[in-house]
Amino acid sequence: MNKLLPEKQLPQILNTETLAESRLFRVESLDLEFSNGEKRTFERLRGNRPGRGAVMIVPMVDENTFALIREYAAGTHNYQLGFPKGIIDIGETPEQAANRELKEEIGMGANKLINMKSLAMAPGYSSSSMHILLAHSLYPEKLDGDEPEPLDIIHWSVNNIDELLQRDDFTEARSVAALFLAQQILKTQNDT
Amino acid sequence: MNKLLPEKQLPQILNTETLAESRLFRVESLDLEFSNGEKRTFERLRGNRPGRGAVMIVPMVDENTFALIREYAAGTHNYQLGFPKGIIDIGETPEQAANRELKEEIGMGANKLINMKSLAMAPGYSSSSMHILLAHSLYPEKLDGDEPEPLDIIHWSVNNIDELLQRDDFTEARSVAALFLAQQILKTQNDT
Repeated sequence: MNKLLPEKQLPQILNTETLAESRLFRVESLDLEFSNGEKRTFERLRGNRPGRGAVMIVPMVDENTFALIREYAAGTHNYQLGFPKGIIDIGETPEQAANRELKEEIGMGANKLINMKSLAMAPGYSSSSMHILLAHSLYPEKLDGDEPEPLDIIHWSVNNIDELLQRDDFTEARSVAALFLAQQILKTQNDT
Repeated sequence: MNKLLPEKQLPQILNTETLAESRLFRVESLDLEFSNGEKRTFERLRGNRPGRGAVMIVPMVDENTFALIREYAAGTHNYQLGFPKGIIDIGETPEQAANRELKEEIGMGANKLINMKSLAMAPGYSSSSMHILLAHSLYPEKLDGDEPEPLDIIHWSVNNIDELLQRDDFTEARSVAALFLAQQILKTQNDT
């Protein structure tokens, strides 16, 4: 248990090819040879804005309350609750991107940002990765975003996390993971 | 706080068009008109195996230990730790799919499966959804999978979750969320 795991030899990439491409997405085929000699062709998805990464922020409006946004989700064609998030602009650190997104999406900046973990969306076929940050010591500052309609901002008590988890409009895996990561840190802070 | 949220009027889908397509993926453009009259074109990603959905399973090998698998992830080109998962085959319930995936990936079936929550991967641009199940009362039964090389199976203590979360090869948002969802249920079971 919790042993150091043995090193694995990565498969060799014999060839890659672009299969399909749009403004935002590129589908790539990947010819692989595994270390046991087995050959396979996988498909993977690349963002067309490589290397930039993204951020998601759990904003604490006071020590017992966090802010959620509600916005239209085109993938599922419904309104979803989740944490503010966005792409890191060129030249920004994750913390700078987080602060800008907070100003755009909830009209607040943060004096304290803690980078909790980087989460992958679906490492089996996507390179997409997101820094998950906890934001404290907020202050009012509004930047204009590019949303088609105003976002709903919803304050939620840390004492009612179960109720949030039971909602069928709070389902994004990264928001669920972010909520638990934040809860863990908040508990540690309150215990000390 | 925790108020019933007001109903939102969904944007109207004026037109959809396939922009790019491969064996596994289809990129679609979506012309939308929001209820305030604002028009936007979004891109979204559809799986080319519609409506089937997927499962991820947290398998408890005893009351204090769960099993992880380690496998090659083509999206990030590294080996990742995570929970067993897979696509629901036609005609299967989520529970049947979970049981089959467990037999293929860790050589165990489960007598007890609890459907904890459905998680979306990235609702903003994907319809992909995954049932997250907790599996108890395991018994040995092996089915052949289609993996290019044998999966590593790793047993991990529920008392060492922090160590797992700190690893940079345990990053998939759905596995992280699944771990916390399972922990929450296990705590409730142990408290009663």
